[in-house]
Amino acid sequence: MSRENGSGTHETIAAISTPPGEGGIAVVRLSGPRAVEIAASLFQGMNPLTEAKPRTACHGWLVQNGTCLDEAVVTVFPGPRSYTGEDVVEISSHGGTWVTRRILDALVAAGAEPAAAGEFTRRAFLNGRLDLAQAEAVADLIRAKTEASRRVAMAHLRGRLTEQLDHIRERLLGICAHLELELDFSEEDVEFTSREEVSGSLAAAVSEIETLIRSYARGRVCREGFNLTIVGRTNVGKSSLLNALIERERAIVTDIPGTTRDTIEDVLDMDGICFTITDTAGIRETSDPVEREGVRRTRIAIEDADMVVVVFDGSTPLTPEDSAVVDVVNGSGKPVLAVVNKSDLKQNIELPLLKQRLPAGETVFVSAKSQAGIPGLIARLEEAALQGGIPESGEVVITHARHHAALERARSSFLSAGDTLKSGLSQEFVALDLRAGLDALAEITGAVTSDDVLNHIFNEFCIGK
Amino acid sequence: MSRENGSGTHETIAAISTPPGEGGIAVVRLSGPRAVEIAASLFQGMNPLTEAKPRTACHGWLVQNGTCLDEAVVTVFPGPRSYTGEDVVEISSHGGTWVTRRILDALVAAGAEPAAAGEFTRRAFLNGRLDLAQAEAVADLIRAKTEASRRVAMAHLRGRLTEQLDHIRERLLGICAHLELELDFSEEDVEFTSREEVSGSLAAAVSEIETLIRSYARGRVCREGFNLTIVGRTNVGKSSLLNALIERERAIVTDIPGTTRDTIEDVLDMDGICFTITDTAGIRETSDPVEREGVRRTRIAIEDADMVVVVFDGSTPLTPEDSAVVDVVNGSGKPVLAVVNKSDLKQNIELPLLKQRLPAGETVFVSAKSQAGIPGLIARLEEAALQGGIPESGEVVITHARHHAALERARSSFLSAGDTLKSGLSQEFVALDLRAGLDALAEITGAVTSDDVLNHIFNEFCIGK
Repeated sequence: MSRENGSGTHETIAAISTPPGEGGIAVVRLSGPRAVEIAASLFQGMNPLTEAKPRTACHGWLVQNGTCLDEAVVTVFPGPRSYTGEDVVEISSHGGTWVTRRILDALVAAGAEPAAAGEFTRRAFLNGRLDLAQAEAVADLIRAKTEASRRVAMAHLRGRLTEQLDHIRERLLGICAHLELELDFSEEDVEFTSREEVSGSLAAAVSEIETLIRSYARGRVCREGFNLTIVGRTNVGKSSLLNALIERERAIVTDIPGTTRDTIEDVLDMDGICFTITDTAGIRETSDPVEREGVRRTRIAIEDADMVVVVFDGSTPLTPEDSAVVDVVNGSGKPVLAVVNKSDLKQNIELPLLKQRLPAGETVFVSAKSQAGIPGLIARLEEAALQGGIPESGEVVITHARHHAALERARSSFLSAGDTLKSGLSQEFVALDLRAGLDALAEITGAVTSDDVLNHIFNEFCIGK
Repeated sequence: MSRENGSGTHETIAAISTPPGEGGIAVVRLSGPRAVEIAASLFQGMNPLTEAKPRTACHGWLVQNGTCLDEAVVTVFPGPRSYTGEDVVEISSHGGTWVTRRILDALVAAGAEPAAAGEFTRRAFLNGRLDLAQAEAVADLIRAKTEASRRVAMAHLRGRLTEQLDHIRERLLGICAHLELELDFSEEDVEFTSREEVSGSLAAAVSEIETLIRSYARGRVCREGFNLTIVGRTNVGKSSLLNALIERERAIVTDIPGTTRDTIEDVLDMDGICFTITDTAGIRETSDPVEREGVRRTRIAIEDADMVVVVFDGSTPLTPEDSAVVDVVNGSGKPVLAVVNKSDLKQNIELPLLKQRLPAGETVFVSAKSQAGIPGLIARLEEAALQGGIPESGEVVITHARHHAALERARSSFLSAGDTLKSGLSQEFVALDLRAGLDALAEITGAVTSDDVLNHIFNEFCIGK
């Protein structure tokens, strides 16, 4: 399972592995059979790099054609006990954009190939240093912006998902082998495993897989966050509500660029969960009582929402604009939460009418101005996003659509195998279904995979990883 | 010269040393007496970190209260053979903003203090691992955006300036000691060094110092770049000229924010020199023949310029607006270059009149449209910015205003010492001047320094260096 280039020889790759920008340390990394030789050609230290002890930091200077590029600490990690499984050299230099670029250029001039996105981790996968679910976890870990996203990535990186899948696969692999063996002896009517045992193992596997599939709702929110859209007519206090949330919670990014829909997006870290909150422009009162453009915008903003928060002004009776908003929300089929704002003022809103018009949603009362009810609202939103809270450290939840789809296919194949078994059809068909389900599970860890899948996964990585 | 905190004990500091953002590797660094102990409290590997071999990379996991934060490679650099001279631990983890933040937080919870800007390098200086000029070179190296800036920083980092200053100081220190000794024996009228020798040594030192002072013009441009302002009335092709330069050269940054003066700034790397080019709005023809506002803007844009490029339209005779521009430029006293654009069209500009109106500047003919003359213009600009080109690798040029000012003071003191010597005044006064000059030189490398100077220098660093 090692990677070769066209000419049949391994290339040695190089890349800047630290983020771009000015910092105290930059690391340029090499991997491949010529990694030590190429780094050694630039290194001037107490001893040649070719004589360096494994995994020992060597101080020296990087010199190209008589020009000293930088001072550096260089460490050689001989394969296979390295990140990629190949010889790896890490050059740790004074940070800085231009200097680091010059070091990479010098390594390329000395024979290294610039690494593609994710190529170090791809090689680590191809050399069996980690499996595909772990490789995806590495990318997730780098992108993690909250504790929930870090934690689910870490569980996958530690191999927890792989362990659980291996556990399911091992038992069924044994059964599958027996079934296939029985086919070879089909004339003799032997039975290596009883039908009850096969049936029981299938049911147990399906049950475990279904638990994983169910965990995807939580896992997806942990990894990707939760999209909340705030809607409501103008002057109900949508912006004040958003500001009240931002004031209380940790805002990661505000005003995401590319919001071409007349909406504002804010990203909040609410107790470890990443909420992307879209504030819509609001439906305005115009000569035409219900503004068409406002309705259109609200509808679009709701499209990507995991939940819709409809804001009302508690101090005034419901207006035709409120009704227009409610119609759009009811039509969307999205989970909904009604927030009645301005609880600090005298309440004039017709609550029974509101509940009748918006039967799906719970109602929460807040004052964005006085912050009354805001902690309760946050708790309600967190509960909606992530029933059961952030997973425990080490708890396995499914976080990738790719894994979810593979598990669905595995489940379907195993259910089909069970049906076939019951219907008394030939073992051959049972074995086929079983094998298809096992392959689906194997896709998750990459034991069975294709170049397309690998390209898709590793192209999402940054260069240098 | 070691740093202590208020309670008399050394603090152990920690910081993220790689640039912020997503990358393949992030490094969190610790320095101080408890560095190993604090890192070891989170580390779970084959062996405890307290037993790790010096400068040897150890693979393991970082675990805080049962929560696994990340996989990491940890290297211990025991003092005094470390960057800071203290015990240093480098934790190299999967990159990523949130994970890295969590690791730092865990180290702080375990007893580390968050490091201040430049605190690692400050400790390195205080522990004698590098001198002050080298410390400044580290910051310059990180900020270097072109080959010229990298090269001058590298020469200082390698200690070339320190060597030269030490050479000057050593000779004069001997003389100073002799003069001071003579004062002790002043009753006896002994002379340990002849007046001719003292005089000759002072003259030699002044000559070497003056060479360094002269190098500042080049060194400053290498380190800080060269500010070029393009002026001219509208429609002479200023923007096209700028685009022609950008097309040919490497643009580092375009449209620097904060240009509130109706000007556009572009930063170009022209053969290793960093040119910041300011394009002014241009003086427009209005009912009032010479627009006051345009003149005002042009004057402001010229203020920070190292050189002014005045653009004319070669295809038309000079206009009153051209004259208004020329008046502003002539009044500024800045070096000037006249660029006659549109050389691809029939020429109608009155060259003798132009030369008469703008006597200070050379004239270059170009066509921004056809690129004719652009390489010549670039060569002319580079020559103006940096007579003699980029310094050779290892050549010492003065790059900091602080060094320049100290050298000026040293020169002045040594000249004064020479005058006192000639005037036959007491040796005492000669020795005082000599000592003042030596102290000025010592300020550059930090042998003599103050907390104010150190704060000023290290506050300019990034955190983590």
